[in-house]
Amino acid sequence: MINRLVEKIKETGAPVVVGLDPMLDYVPKQVRKRAYEEFGETLEGAAEAIWQFNKEIVDKTFDLIPAVKPQAAMYEQFGIPGLEAFKRTVDYCKEKGLVVIGDIKRGDIGSTSAAYAAGHIGKVQVGSKTYVPFGEDFITVNPYLGSDGIHPFLKVCKEEKKGMFVLVKTSNPSSGEFQDRLIDGRPLYELVGEKVAAWGEEAMGNAYSYVGAVVGATYPEMGKALRKIMPKAYILVPGYGAQGGKGKDLVHFFDENGLGAIVNSSRGIIAAYKQEKYAGFGAENFGDASREAVKDMVSDIRGALENR
Amino acid sequence: MINRLVEKIKETGAPVVVGLDPMLDYVPKQVRKRAYEEFGETLEGAAEAIWQFNKEIVDKTFDLIPAVKPQAAMYEQFGIPGLEAFKRTVDYCKEKGLVVIGDIKRGDIGSTSAAYAAGHIGKVQVGSKTYVPFGEDFITVNPYLGSDGIHPFLKVCKEEKKGMFVLVKTSNPSSGEFQDRLIDGRPLYELVGEKVAAWGEEAMGNAYSYVGAVVGATYPEMGKALRKIMPKAYILVPGYGAQGGKGKDLVHFFDENGLGAIVNSSRGIIAAYKQEKYAGFGAENFGDASREAVKDMVSDIRGALENR
Repeated sequence: MINRLVEKIKETGAPVVVGLDPMLDYVPKQVRKRAYEEFGETLEGAAEAIWQFNKEIVDKTFDLIPAVKPQAAMYEQFGIPGLEAFKRTVDYCKEKGLVVIGDIKRGDIGSTSAAYAAGHIGKVQVGSKTYVPFGEDFITVNPYLGSDGIHPFLKVCKEEKKGMFVLVKTSNPSSGEFQDRLIDGRPLYELVGEKVAAWGEEAMGNAYSYVGAVVGATYPEMGKALRKIMPKAYILVPGYGAQGGKGKDLVHFFDENGLGAIVNSSRGIIAAYKQEKYAGFGAENFGDASREAVKDMVSDIRGALENR
Repeated sequence: MINRLVEKIKETGAPVVVGLDPMLDYVPKQVRKRAYEEFGETLEGAAEAIWQFNKEIVDKTFDLIPAVKPQAAMYEQFGIPGLEAFKRTVDYCKEKGLVVIGDIKRGDIGSTSAAYAAGHIGKVQVGSKTYVPFGEDFITVNPYLGSDGIHPFLKVCKEEKKGMFVLVKTSNPSSGEFQDRLIDGRPLYELVGEKVAAWGEEAMGNAYSYVGAVVGATYPEMGKALRKIMPKAYILVPGYGAQGGKGKDLVHFFDENGLGAIVNSSRGIIAAYKQEKYAGFGAENFGDASREAVKDMVSDIRGALENR
């Protein structure tokens, strides 16, 4: 799947991923209204609203981008109907040829990690039958429990040719509280980065590993150091746009081939119609606003890469 | 909810929690067979099997124990039907008067943690209506992202009088890879423990905080140190039984009142009928085997506490 992700990034010329993190208040009123008319002001109504919202954004952007990243929390908050909308979104994006990164940030001890891996990027056996429960292509994983929490994910990645991005340095303001603490003179995130590189050697695609890393756009200097520590790891970079990261901050996350990183934007794309810059589209045409925001993001990042 | 948990522990005299982590191969053949006859060898069939399995165990043990801990991964692996079985299990255990600890190990940046908190221990708003999506009483949370990933959970804990257990030192063999690394001469897990104590001060129950900690039974010396660092935090102790922890290892997790810790056993209880010790019950009476295993666990731990 990492090979396919790299190919799609080359094809589209867009090292970006659209974060499908639909808060209800991002969903334009007319979309919510239609959903509530059909299903009431219920969890089913909310789920329908976010699904219709996602669908429109995907329809308007899928030809420009290699991948999407639905954030599980935004669906899980609406209970079972929300998770049905998650599954529906994953399936639809795959139909549209997109690579789907499930932003689930799971991580547990051995047998439990194995169950998450089976559920999200693998298969489960029921009697004589086999099922693909959620079917994402990549997932995000939390490293706090160490190697034996990671290996079950790695095993499924190898079997299914899927991938994962391990949290190394997250984009939020207090990420440094533990991640930056010095151990033998080096920050914890570097030690995690070294482990990511080691885990990744066990599962190599053509040029990059099945095991990538999450490094926040908000910490460009750390991205530079981590790029060297994990030369074969694709870096998933959250924090662009709404969280403050800009194209020029991102150049060091990429390698000399202009590859090796994929930058996520969520609110900046999916709620673009709410920004002054794209307000001209109007709430009715929120998908077109998202399309324009994708184009602007791609040219910001490509511009920065060309001028480095 | 921490007050209620402490009361229930006193009432039952049992500082234990039964981990409802149903692997399909724990479920006796006759239970699986009935479920597959009704729903086929499908995800629905698997979900029905684990739900019936859980129900029998709960029916046979609820009067002996204060709490259960369903492990989300074991349900999520069966997709949407699996999560329906999770919800059904949560609801049923609450009906039976049990405190429900959702072992979800979530953790993310601010707005995303807020969504997980709403989904699992809080409420969501849809138009003018309010819903409780999953409705656990406590959840487990991963600290790797730092305070701003924890505060949204804390906020909901305070609003809803719910609680959380933050992963401090996990029970698995490679937990030390990052958690034990020394920072200014002290292991990372102690720094996380100090944060747990600080977060906990913001949300105190009568004697203990809404913010507890997860510390593995497999590391008794660390439990001793952490008990002092987090005097008001209830410690959820996984790793008893199948993972190797024994009653005598656990005394230091408790405070001088014999409170302050609750010990989890999953496989050791729910798959007790597969152990030689309880084989006499037979697979037909798996619930009775679990009941006996709960009694043995309680007397092992109480005995150890009395003899310390």
